[in-house]
Amino acid sequence: MLFSPGAEEMYPPDFDTAVVVQKQLTQTLCGASRPGHFEGVATVVAKLFNLVRPQRAFFGQKDYQQFLVVKRLAADLNTGCEIVMLPTVREADGLAKSSRNAYLTPEERASAPAVYQALKLAEGMLQVGERNPKEVIEAVRKRLRAEPKMEVEYIATKHAGTLEDLNILAGTVLVAVAVKLGATRLIDNVLVDVSTGS
Amino acid sequence: MLFSPGAEEMYPPDFDTAVVVQKQLTQTLCGASRPGHFEGVATVVAKLFNLVRPQRAFFGQKDYQQFLVVKRLAADLNTGCEIVMLPTVREADGLAKSSRNAYLTPEERASAPAVYQALKLAEGMLQVGERNPKEVIEAVRKRLRAEPKMEVEYIATKHAGTLEDLNILAGTVLVAVAVKLGATRLIDNVLVDVSTGS
Repeated sequence: MLFSPGAEEMYPPDFDTAVVVQKQLTQTLCGASRPGHFEGVATVVAKLFNLVRPQRAFFGQKDYQQFLVVKRLAADLNTGCEIVMLPTVREADGLAKSSRNAYLTPEERASAPAVYQALKLAEGMLQVGERNPKEVIEAVRKRLRAEPKMEVEYIATKHAGTLEDLNILAGTVLVAVAVKLGATRLIDNVLVDVSTGS
Repeated sequence: MLFSPGAEEMYPPDFDTAVVVQKQLTQTLCGASRPGHFEGVATVVAKLFNLVRPQRAFFGQKDYQQFLVVKRLAADLNTGCEIVMLPTVREADGLAKSSRNAYLTPEERASAPAVYQALKLAEGMLQVGERNPKEVIEAVRKRLRAEPKMEVEYIATKHAGTLEDLNILAGTVLVAVAVKLGATRLIDNVLVDVSTGS
């Protein structure tokens, strides 16, 4: 970032305003286990947009729910800022890049690529016609279970625009995973367009 | 206003963001009887500030709590907009100007100036040294009770900066009143600086 105000400047003692993106977008997936997280994200992004007044802001696909929340508030508050999603950047073995990867032990690091492998498995199933979310989720779960140290927080298939659950997978489908490897929480996802498939 | 977007443009069907000014400023006075009111105010003002990007915005003292809420969000969200309070504009008999005055029957209209008269009474008491909020509130109540059609919603003395209750009146004091006259709700207030008095 080109400027760096201190925390006491961004959040003075009488600070008392929150930007809240409601319902569906923030109460599912990572919002379910991290209450208040997306409120903090939305509030600080609204502040930064007022300070910087960007024409475009770029967010990575790895934090897809965050991208949707920011896109929602940017439109709803008439910020005039276009929110652009960029593809997830990955290590050679597929692990999504994240500052948290540094906390993984060598053993955990060896196990971590299973997340993306499981997501690619789901993508493959969707591409060859699978439309039952339970089958996709079960296949992802089975792949992740092969990693003894990996604890699954969620495996979900969602409508990519609204994050609603789907009984039959259709349109652009988000397949998202959150796991814990020891003390480190990892998330990743793939977007699969199945609108023309089956 | 110089522009006039339609409601469907300001609040499309998937609109889902609220700006919330929390705790003390919005849960007392008018916020107590109008849940969600200041959330609506804060959200639409945040939208308008992003659309217009004003350097200054002017709010009337009659809606003093609204002025404080807008000042709070303008600072907290780093809007860069200076919020300026302008004095309440009054009719010749002291009634605060409001679009709602048009709804008063002739009888109610004749009774309505009692609100400002009661507030001037409170101001006078403070100016000659009264520091007990109960005495001030009781005197205002007594004056309003003289109007048979007037129903009191609240009479309050508050710290003008934080809207906190005061055991001993000090600093700049807000004396605020809300009443119903038939179907019409009227509010008014005075600010009295007692920091050098007593």
